[in-house]
Amino acid sequence: MISVHLERGIVSVADVPPPARPAGHALIRLLHAGICSTDLHLQRGYYGFAGTPGHEFVGEVVACDNAHWLGKKVAGEINLACGNCPFCAKGLGRHCPNRTVLGIVRHPGAFAEFLTLPEQNLHEIPPQVPLLDAVFTEPIAAACEILDQVRIPGGAPVAVLGDGKLGLLIAQVLQLHGAQVHLYGRHPEKMRHLSPLGVASHPASDPSQAAYEFVVEATGSSAGLEQAIALTVPRGVLIMKSTVHDRVSIDTAPVIVNEISLIGSRCGRFPPALELLAQGNLILQPLIEDRFPLREAPRAFARAAEKGVLKVLLDN
Amino acid sequence: MISVHLERGIVSVADVPPPARPAGHALIRLLHAGICSTDLHLQRGYYGFAGTPGHEFVGEVVACDNAHWLGKKVAGEINLACGNCPFCAKGLGRHCPNRTVLGIVRHPGAFAEFLTLPEQNLHEIPPQVPLLDAVFTEPIAAACEILDQVRIPGGAPVAVLGDGKLGLLIAQVLQLHGAQVHLYGRHPEKMRHLSPLGVASHPASDPSQAAYEFVVEATGSSAGLEQAIALTVPRGVLIMKSTVHDRVSIDTAPVIVNEISLIGSRCGRFPPALELLAQGNLILQPLIEDRFPLREAPRAFARAAEKGVLKVLLDN
Repeated sequence: MISVHLERGIVSVADVPPPARPAGHALIRLLHAGICSTDLHLQRGYYGFAGTPGHEFVGEVVACDNAHWLGKKVAGEINLACGNCPFCAKGLGRHCPNRTVLGIVRHPGAFAEFLTLPEQNLHEIPPQVPLLDAVFTEPIAAACEILDQVRIPGGAPVAVLGDGKLGLLIAQVLQLHGAQVHLYGRHPEKMRHLSPLGVASHPASDPSQAAYEFVVEATGSSAGLEQAIALTVPRGVLIMKSTVHDRVSIDTAPVIVNEISLIGSRCGRFPPALELLAQGNLILQPLIEDRFPLREAPRAFARAAEKGVLKVLLDN
Repeated sequence: MISVHLERGIVSVADVPPPARPAGHALIRLLHAGICSTDLHLQRGYYGFAGTPGHEFVGEVVACDNAHWLGKKVAGEINLACGNCPFCAKGLGRHCPNRTVLGIVRHPGAFAEFLTLPEQNLHEIPPQVPLLDAVFTEPIAAACEILDQVRIPGGAPVAVLGDGKLGLLIAQVLQLHGAQVHLYGRHPEKMRHLSPLGVASHPASDPSQAAYEFVVEATGSSAGLEQAIALTVPRGVLIMKSTVHDRVSIDTAPVIVNEISLIGSRCGRFPPALELLAQGNLILQPLIEDRFPLREAPRAFARAAEKGVLKVLLDN
């Protein structure tokens, strides 16, 4: 099968045997996969990664233990938890210290014709959801994670900083949840896609003073956190979504003096994301900037790394 | 009256007229005041401060509107709130954007023979509390603030980083609340004072891996935050108590990947602190390293700034 390989910054494509299917795992034929900022970080050497990346996908089950899954179109949770630790016991397998992670930590990823995942990680795509929407399930779940961590009342003004791939999804999820989202970014033409949902857009340079009880930092830049702190009112909540992989320098005094809560936020549960997808109100297709067949993964990675480019897909 | 003056790093003592008493304010004769790290920061130019510092005190009311207060021994909340803003309406005058702050922001402080504060800021010292304990009311309230912000279950292990003035108070407050405190510091002889309460002591260099669901950073050093992050388990809570007044450089990735909550924490309400003081279980006298009369404030400030010195008092 065709499989993408990433090592020392080089993206290559190889013809390799399909993966063996461990007991309890499903063998999944890839349909579409999305290139995420994390994949680009892996390319730059984050986690000392070498192997097949890819963790945003939609695929079809072609072999499994439980016949229920056969032929089903699925998305899959990316953390493979041990099931035996205190985190797993609390239903927080996403934080299992023994976990492997699809396409990130010691489990071959989705940028290949076939991949494997435990059947318990699978979620069926609701029939009314187009597959090119379903490929966003994982990052939508990461956006929904905010609502699992922080209670945001209906109508509350929320600032989202950053109009990249994740910022545009977060803005939609919070707006559809009932918040009044104010999106701050550098690309009016991208932010405009969300105006049908009622998301308000502002230039990134605009925010200059504390004005929001809820702020989401999704700029992907090391300067973003300090700007987000400045935007948060005393006793407000700042959700940290940008994994920058650089040291970030901040003045902690306003965090302490204003008693701000900074909440780190990563992966989320898939069911709320699939429910949102099934409702059909998310605006996703304008976020797909380009598509490439798997064998053109090197070009796809180069395209995804261009400044300001949103989602690039790999198709099988 | 004798009044301490701080300007451009120089501590001086002057003989000045006593302050005028605005309507609704009490005129308070100082009994004892404590020098806090914030006072030392003010000396270094923080807030561009020039004036009379001092915000930890116990005193006696000598003039007031409401006769109830006359002659009473009091501590006083340091934030003078406007009473008319949304924060004041929520009972969060400590975050009132229009506030002045005793000895810190546009309100002359407690390092003087007499000071004024609104009567509504006053709290009577319970009769069984020694005045040399009561002088700790303000920093004990700051320690109690943690319990207003974060629910810490009984018996929960909590790491407190830093065995300075504030760390030693926080460790006691959390231990008396029912947590099992593990105090990490550089001074075994100071940490030993808390062993009668059951506080466990560890060398500051000890903590090397995530082990605590609750961590309090009170080292006062810019390296403390990163060490505190490393000590916090996934989904854990890190309370930030050190106002460092330097830029702090951190790797935000573990905060996000482990979904840690960083909670800025500053001043607290006085009633829980006075209740704790009234119970009489806090160990406070060993924390008093030295005492000076008001007129020797320059020597007192120099003493307080010595490395490893705990509380230095000014007596009137």
